[in-house]
Amino acid sequence: MEPAPNQRPADSTRLQHIMREVSELLRKQHLVEQLLDRTDTPRHALEQQVLHRQHLSELERKLSRLHPADIAHILEALPLEERLTVWDLVRADLDGEILLEVSDAVRESLIARMDQAELQAAAAQLDADELADLAADLPRDVLQSVLDAMDAQNRARLQAALSYPEDTVGALMDYAPVTIREDISLDVVYRYLRRIGELPDHTDKLFVTNRHGQLTGILLLRRLVAEDPARRVSEVMARDVVTFSPGDPAEEAAQAFERYDLVSAPVVDERRHVLGRLTIDVVVDYLQELRNAEMLGRAGLREDEDLFAGVGPSVRNRWPWLAVNLVTALIASRVIGLFEGTIERLVALAALMPIVAGIGGNTGNQTSALIIRALALDQLNDNNTHRLIRKEIRVALLNGLVWGSVVGAVAYGLYGNPALGVVMSAAMLLNLLLAALAGMLIPLAMHRLRRDPALGSSVLLTATTDSGGFFIFLGLASVFLQ
Amino acid sequence: MEPAPNQRPADSTRLQHIMREVSELLRKQHLVEQLLDRTDTPRHALEQQVLHRQHLSELERKLSRLHPADIAHILEALPLEERLTVWDLVRADLDGEILLEVSDAVRESLIARMDQAELQAAAAQLDADELADLAADLPRDVLQSVLDAMDAQNRARLQAALSYPEDTVGALMDYAPVTIREDISLDVVYRYLRRIGELPDHTDKLFVTNRHGQLTGILLLRRLVAEDPARRVSEVMARDVVTFSPGDPAEEAAQAFERYDLVSAPVVDERRHVLGRLTIDVVVDYLQELRNAEMLGRAGLREDEDLFAGVGPSVRNRWPWLAVNLVTALIASRVIGLFEGTIERLVALAALMPIVAGIGGNTGNQTSALIIRALALDQLNDNNTHRLIRKEIRVALLNGLVWGSVVGAVAYGLYGNPALGVVMSAAMLLNLLLAALAGMLIPLAMHRLRRDPALGSSVLLTATTDSGGFFIFLGLASVFLQ
Repeated sequence: MEPAPNQRPADSTRLQHIMREVSELLRKQHLVEQLLDRTDTPRHALEQQVLHRQHLSELERKLSRLHPADIAHILEALPLEERLTVWDLVRADLDGEILLEVSDAVRESLIARMDQAELQAAAAQLDADELADLAADLPRDVLQSVLDAMDAQNRARLQAALSYPEDTVGALMDYAPVTIREDISLDVVYRYLRRIGELPDHTDKLFVTNRHGQLTGILLLRRLVAEDPARRVSEVMARDVVTFSPGDPAEEAAQAFERYDLVSAPVVDERRHVLGRLTIDVVVDYLQELRNAEMLGRAGLREDEDLFAGVGPSVRNRWPWLAVNLVTALIASRVIGLFEGTIERLVALAALMPIVAGIGGNTGNQTSALIIRALALDQLNDNNTHRLIRKEIRVALLNGLVWGSVVGAVAYGLYGNPALGVVMSAAMLLNLLLAALAGMLIPLAMHRLRRDPALGSSVLLTATTDSGGFFIFLGLASVFLQ
Repeated sequence: MEPAPNQRPADSTRLQHIMREVSELLRKQHLVEQLLDRTDTPRHALEQQVLHRQHLSELERKLSRLHPADIAHILEALPLEERLTVWDLVRADLDGEILLEVSDAVRESLIARMDQAELQAAAAQLDADELADLAADLPRDVLQSVLDAMDAQNRARLQAALSYPEDTVGALMDYAPVTIREDISLDVVYRYLRRIGELPDHTDKLFVTNRHGQLTGILLLRRLVAEDPARRVSEVMARDVVTFSPGDPAEEAAQAFERYDLVSAPVVDERRHVLGRLTIDVVVDYLQELRNAEMLGRAGLREDEDLFAGVGPSVRNRWPWLAVNLVTALIASRVIGLFEGTIERLVALAALMPIVAGIGGNTGNQTSALIIRALALDQLNDNNTHRLIRKEIRVALLNGLVWGSVVGAVAYGLYGNPALGVVMSAAMLLNLLLAALAGMLIPLAMHRLRRDPALGSSVLLTATTDSGGFFIFLGLASVFLQ
């Protein structure tokens, strides 16, 4: 939404300033509440209540001047109790918009606070495609009564939007395409547009159809305004159009938006009838969420976590990963356990073994980061993969020789045992080779299995380089240092 | 750029198909070249040469039908030698566009192949702001002769663009704003636009100025086309406008684009004179590059690496991180070294210590991922940070008690030593607390020091939880298990 007058958007410094003011008002109001609880004289209580109301109305006034996206930002940065105080003060006609803007976790906390009437009012402010984004979080009876209140066309749209899988174009598209016929003059187009009134957000082009209603081209607004109104649509429209099907993967569509610098694009069925449109703002939000989920997922968080979630939900969010990690750590530990006799005879091995494992893990991660990025950018194919493998093996060999010599020399320097230095060097070289192989093959295998290589790769990789590193180092030591 | 006719954009499946065709043609052509080298009869050689030329012209034809962004994609996915073969076949009038699209590393390899005349021709296809993006990679004499060939206005623009620091709005803005006066009628606006002809890419709004040339509002095209042409600009324009200064941080501007769903926005000086504009395509590319650099940086790659870079550059790209890693690994190793006597008496410690360190590192990473994201979204302030710290400490306590008991029980089960189990549990608890603290304080401190917390945090964190974990576990063991 383009900010409307009276909702002057805030830059980050201003936003921080507002955030501070809001916090300050909330703090004062909290103090007053505490005083109220303790006050026993009625006059004092009355004074405090007046003050309390003043603070709240000042806060309400400040909020009323903010863009919904900014209010969403403030709500996300507030601890639960204060978040709900602010939420109660927000203009009711922005509720729907704000619920769309906040993160999933925060949205749940807000919806839990609203009664059925408020939820219905908020839902009524939204288009079918927007409502579809909220539907999963709405209580069943609210959703039902919203559905009942809709006209047939919107109900059908909402049901269609809900029927598309989450990561498809269908789930992201809206139902606000403006279509015109190819056989009319631009003058007629203008008359039509003036009858519609202001066009939907992100309308940079009109979709042109033939008399069978099939998409035949697009007319850019920036072309339209610069053309002679006497010309026909078919003369000035562009015929090569990027179109999507509702079943297309959303990520692929997002890549096309990035690659071809699109602002909006038609979504069509197999007969090229226009079903809806995809717009850049939705694509940007989608990419943002995707990358966010990937970043958190890579660090071992199952899903997005409300910054101020309770301890219970936070802990549950983190356990699956820790459980996996415990298993891999135990395996590594058992590998070491195999060589306890060797370590007992030469305890320096215990001090040196984490170096071999650790540097292996790091080089492996460097390799896998490159591979994961290349997979995400769709740059790998059978033809170039084997070249890449050869290159990474060479890099690992060179790294292994250089860093192996360094750590070998350090081991020799520390313990004065030349054989130990040689074993250390050899183990480094071998573990770096293992790391390079694992760093390539694990993401490639996950990609083949149609799993996101960014998510599980690093656990598997570290498990390999840890257990592998301990096994190689202690194994070599048990053979050559007895 | 909106794809022009004859440059039908390719979806990802089609792109992969083209990629395969290109590879196939390159392979055939390579075979022919090898044959040519070995052929001794002149007739045979002639045949081979004909075949060779046929392959190349087929490839050239295929390339000529692709969008520049798709050609850039293909170039990035090809090993150096084949990349240059393709580059030579690309239509010269797309050279400039393609150089803008490819990654920095690939761009260098392409520019190295071009002679001065080709470079000048490519540079001449670009606007001042686009040229500024290439300037760093161009040989000095080419840049000079391009400058000489420019008119005064464009030269001034190029110099201005080059003078802004890399991560500012000034470096990203273009010089294609369309401004109109507020006191004219929409009819006059149309006449003006028709004189200009097609408007620049991503023109979704016109910038409105008063008679002093100061920005007073914006006129959305989708509003313009739906209004009565007799009305005045000042009646239909929006007065609340998101504007930027050339010195604004690019990342903040990108956040504003995401938050307010902008397609374009004016860049103004302190007197509100329009200097240029920022558009969503540039913002999306910027965010893409930023996240890419962060993802690679987090994995320890100094800069973007050409997938098919030689071993030398690849190795240099990875060494700084490995060197840092070696130092932290050595510190951890010396911490273990302190307790060699203890390990010698109870070798089970050597097998168990990586568990304590490893799980500590993982929980710390979960915490720091949340903090880093909150910092990136600007959600932290003095008021909520201490709440967050309290919450994370509680999560760590709970995790420490639960997982500490589990690993304690495992240790007891493996070695039948109850005291060892207790030490293991206590060490886990303490190391998870240390991890939570480090996971919060390290990114917060880096943010205070105005460094990117996403980049160095994980090394420092792992160093802390490794050395700390070894110290806590072995220290407790040396005190309580003797």
